[in-house]
Amino acid sequence: MPVGEGSQETAFPVQGVRLAAVAAGIRHANRLDLVLFEFSVGTNVAGVFTRNAFCAAPVLIARTHLQKSGIRYLLINTGNANAGTGEPGRLNSLLCCQKLAELADVDLHSVLPFSTGVIGQNLPVEKILLGIPEALKALKADRWLDAARGIMTTDTRPKMVSVTLEHQGKTLAITGIAKGAGMIKPNMATMLAFICTDARIDQPLLENLLSQAVNSSFNRITVDGDTSTNDSCIVAATGKSAVVVSAQDQLLLSSFSKALTTVMTGLATAIIRDAEGATKFVTVRVKNGRDSKECLAVAYAIAESPLVKTALFASDPNWGRILAAIGRAGVDELEIDKITIHLNEACLVTKGAVAADYTEAKGQAVMDLDEIEITVNLQRGEVCETVWTSDLSHEYVRINAEYRS
Amino acid sequence: MPVGEGSQETAFPVQGVRLAAVAAGIRHANRLDLVLFEFSVGTNVAGVFTRNAFCAAPVLIARTHLQKSGIRYLLINTGNANAGTGEPGRLNSLLCCQKLAELADVDLHSVLPFSTGVIGQNLPVEKILLGIPEALKALKADRWLDAARGIMTTDTRPKMVSVTLEHQGKTLAITGIAKGAGMIKPNMATMLAFICTDARIDQPLLENLLSQAVNSSFNRITVDGDTSTNDSCIVAATGKSAVVVSAQDQLLLSSFSKALTTVMTGLATAIIRDAEGATKFVTVRVKNGRDSKECLAVAYAIAESPLVKTALFASDPNWGRILAAIGRAGVDELEIDKITIHLNEACLVTKGAVAADYTEAKGQAVMDLDEIEITVNLQRGEVCETVWTSDLSHEYVRINAEYRS
Repeated sequence: MPVGEGSQETAFPVQGVRLAAVAAGIRHANRLDLVLFEFSVGTNVAGVFTRNAFCAAPVLIARTHLQKSGIRYLLINTGNANAGTGEPGRLNSLLCCQKLAELADVDLHSVLPFSTGVIGQNLPVEKILLGIPEALKALKADRWLDAARGIMTTDTRPKMVSVTLEHQGKTLAITGIAKGAGMIKPNMATMLAFICTDARIDQPLLENLLSQAVNSSFNRITVDGDTSTNDSCIVAATGKSAVVVSAQDQLLLSSFSKALTTVMTGLATAIIRDAEGATKFVTVRVKNGRDSKECLAVAYAIAESPLVKTALFASDPNWGRILAAIGRAGVDELEIDKITIHLNEACLVTKGAVAADYTEAKGQAVMDLDEIEITVNLQRGEVCETVWTSDLSHEYVRINAEYRS
Repeated sequence: MPVGEGSQETAFPVQGVRLAAVAAGIRHANRLDLVLFEFSVGTNVAGVFTRNAFCAAPVLIARTHLQKSGIRYLLINTGNANAGTGEPGRLNSLLCCQKLAELADVDLHSVLPFSTGVIGQNLPVEKILLGIPEALKALKADRWLDAARGIMTTDTRPKMVSVTLEHQGKTLAITGIAKGAGMIKPNMATMLAFICTDARIDQPLLENLLSQAVNSSFNRITVDGDTSTNDSCIVAATGKSAVVVSAQDQLLLSSFSKALTTVMTGLATAIIRDAEGATKFVTVRVKNGRDSKECLAVAYAIAESPLVKTALFASDPNWGRILAAIGRAGVDELEIDKITIHLNEACLVTKGAVAADYTEAKGQAVMDLDEIEITVNLQRGEVCETVWTSDLSHEYVRINAEYRS
């Protein structure tokens, strides 16, 4: 059961973008599993990808194709990650791109491929080749929710966030979809996320905006610490809204950057709310550290501790496990006497030991909630970092023990 | 259910060591929970302790007391870790040491205290003070198994390893006990392990031997990546066997060092075989790396991956998860085309993709076993490292969700 509200049900269409989702029977019958994005000519596209050394074949190809401009199509399949498949995997992915390029009469380099699903099995190329013409025929501007459904794997619901921005009487839209529920600790990218805007934004600026927004959204979530082989996050700017986002207008640039970050944080937290087996949505905030590195070390030590995560699942205010996680985070010269730990408003720890006015009842009241914020104040600097995570439940074990069966 | 054979049922007594285990009612009634070791005068004692910054009160005291020689007693309680308890926790631990020192007529610094159990609750000092006279009266040379039982928490069985060594017609014994099943990723030490020998070994050499043996035993196991606040490993050498281990006799030194490592590896792997919820005993071996650091990074990435661990629980040869874990281990310039991965004798991966002769049946046959060895060959150096771990089962979640209830 996902935690809290999911994503939006309706999307603001993005001028210059059409989408389709079809059931190609890649792993299961009658399930949307092949998604196509089409961008109008002149769209700028930026992407970031997994840093996992065993990155998937489609990641290798998408990276190469992105080095040229003129991206026109994203071709996304679920049910098979096409990772750990070596050179045959790369050829299989290129075959699919080639078929689409021929039918759509564009260059091979105009297609970016994406795959997600089981690692280490060969891509069922024939099924995808058969699905491509159908998908091309089905392209429409209002198919965002279908596309969000079409990229799901162990997700229990689609993830979509959409906003508009008014500027001097003109409107631009930013709409994005994402998928992912397990093998989630994006490293410079995420599972799969696709965000489109009809603003006009030049390529270097688009890359900057993407990288900034990714760093405070997708790069701040973890389900199980397992960085995927297929993480990819793409932003496309079609320019069709006639609003130009550039360094010339700092106010608009700042508004746009905030809106993009809002969309991406919305998608990232939607992934955590729907994490495999999640019963809690947990925000870990580490304040007043010396630098980002030590704040993140503490935040991830807590967010990825199986003991903290099982205590969260049990709604057990066993704060000793939080304290132990902080202590092993590898922070230099940690002054434990200064540290305070809060569960929402309840102060658990001051001066390295239980707070004088803490009671088990106060801790229990917070732990009984679905949404919990753990705040650690290191009291030795100015930097703050936030990480989102889920708990570790029986359902997580069940899903991942039965994943391939 | 623990995996495979447990520890020995009988111990070789160690001359100069007496033990007792009593039920002091610290957390549960009628359970051995207070253990006392007594060493003869002249015993040398060396110890290593957790590097968790939030280390427990007894760890702080034991470290200080070890700086003087003349250790005569170890006082160990379960049911309460006395960690996260600040200055009051330190005073409580000192009170217990003081009581024992008075009754035994030794210096306060001759007592080393150890605690294990729930973090963040005050030590029930009165119960321990009442138990100490009883324990002193019960001291005997043949109470090793009782002591091994008396230090258990979520352990399902005692952990004891005992060997003897013949040297020029004389015999020396090395006997050790350990406990621990969760919050296990010892960092320079372990949960609680106590090893005694009746060899005569001077203090600097004893410290060296301990540190070497710890590094290839307790420092190579992980259940959940959660380094405890209370890890402690103690070696005591009474000298009562009349065998002197020293640099003068390199052959004996080498034999002794091997025997000590055997005892400590036996105890460390006994902890993994009895890890919380364990259904598999898993050896992760990373071969031919450039240095120890990169071998361990890969080994721990695999051993602590929740996805690898749930696949092990399900006996699912989902090797893509092993490959993904290697890829995210953060090794510089990893040449994925060179890497091979084996499950016992079955070759899974060569050249970054599935091995030509691999079949699901071969992988399944290995995964169905209780004891599994995952071998990764990086093929770029000479260094090899081994790490032992367990799987992630429903039982692990249940134990840790219900731990305090």
